[in-house]
Amino acid sequence: MERLKQQMKFILEIDNLKKVQRQSYLSDGSRKENDTEHSWHLAMMCFLLKEYAPKEIDVLKTMTMVLIHDIVELDAGDTYAYDDAGNSTKREREVKAAERIYGILPKEQDKELRNLWEEFEEGTSEEAKFANALDKIQPILLNDASEGKAWREHAVEINQILKRNEKTPKGAPELWEYCEKLLEDNIKKGNIKAEGGVV
Amino acid sequence: MERLKQQMKFILEIDNLKKVQRQSYLSDGSRKENDTEHSWHLAMMCFLLKEYAPKEIDVLKTMTMVLIHDIVELDAGDTYAYDDAGNSTKREREVKAAERIYGILPKEQDKELRNLWEEFEEGTSEEAKFANALDKIQPILLNDASEGKAWREHAVEINQILKRNEKTPKGAPELWEYCEKLLEDNIKKGNIKAEGGVV
Repeated sequence: MERLKQQMKFILEIDNLKKVQRQSYLSDGSRKENDTEHSWHLAMMCFLLKEYAPKEIDVLKTMTMVLIHDIVELDAGDTYAYDDAGNSTKREREVKAAERIYGILPKEQDKELRNLWEEFEEGTSEEAKFANALDKIQPILLNDASEGKAWREHAVEINQILKRNEKTPKGAPELWEYCEKLLEDNIKKGNIKAEGGVV
Repeated sequence: MERLKQQMKFILEIDNLKKVQRQSYLSDGSRKENDTEHSWHLAMMCFLLKEYAPKEIDVLKTMTMVLIHDIVELDAGDTYAYDDAGNSTKREREVKAAERIYGILPKEQDKELRNLWEEFEEGTSEEAKFANALDKIQPILLNDASEGKAWREHAVEINQILKRNEKTPKGAPELWEYCEKLLEDNIKKGNIKAEGGVV
């Protein structure tokens, strides 16, 4: 019973992730999405697009990875992709968060989920590479669908997006190709700033 | 490329599920949750509580099932558990919705997900029994955490909850036992109406 109580406590704790807002808008631009909506969307993408992973992946592992990858933001908050100051302290804040939050669980589940999160952060396993690619691609899809709403608000430049997506082509080559076309369109539309004659 | 376009169209279509509101409040009672938040929460519960399934389940299948189980509500809307009129037309509305929405996908993914949804609705496989139990248990946890906010708003009686949960004890016996204690507490607190001397 003690074990179940710990699990239930964790399940209620992560309910709060529904209140952690991201910078991406829903596809219709009506409001920003939160971490749990984003994670659900990634899990769906993982299931639907698994055939585009360059090598075979453990789908259950990858889906679980994307479902949990933002849980540390419960304490550490969402750090916007192009917030340099925030990103310099991100790792430290997130490690502390992982210790507290996953520590609510029974020991072996704590370890399992913390390892899975570290694997995602490390980004070197086949599963982590694909999960990271999806995590970068989903906001591109939403931004494109909402006429670049978040890109325009933050005056994002194509170089910033390409730098952030350095590893995405290797994680999901065909999906990245699809995104490149969307990015080009959005530069033309003025939703993304073309810097230094990149395009 | 045609295949990927269909998949991407579906991925954007289901983004709208983030706007389909349920009757359950977040654990802090601050607002109602939506279908994607609920589905993410169920997938997390599935992963964390899989040891309580009475027989071994295919975890990936069960997680996918809970992730997609509410997609039909995109067209059919969320029907409140205790809305008898709404529930009498629910099946017909949802089947139509499944045809349209899953029909966006490439043929074999359409078939795969529609079958998975039908299996959930049927509720007889081990995976569907556990998934259905989680789907019923999650709102009990949220209602309990929010001092019975949704129960009180709808003046819900314990008999209604027990009827709705007829199959939950078989789907997840230990989890149901845990819920029974929560229900008792909430009758005592006046959050759930005790009818006909049931308690």
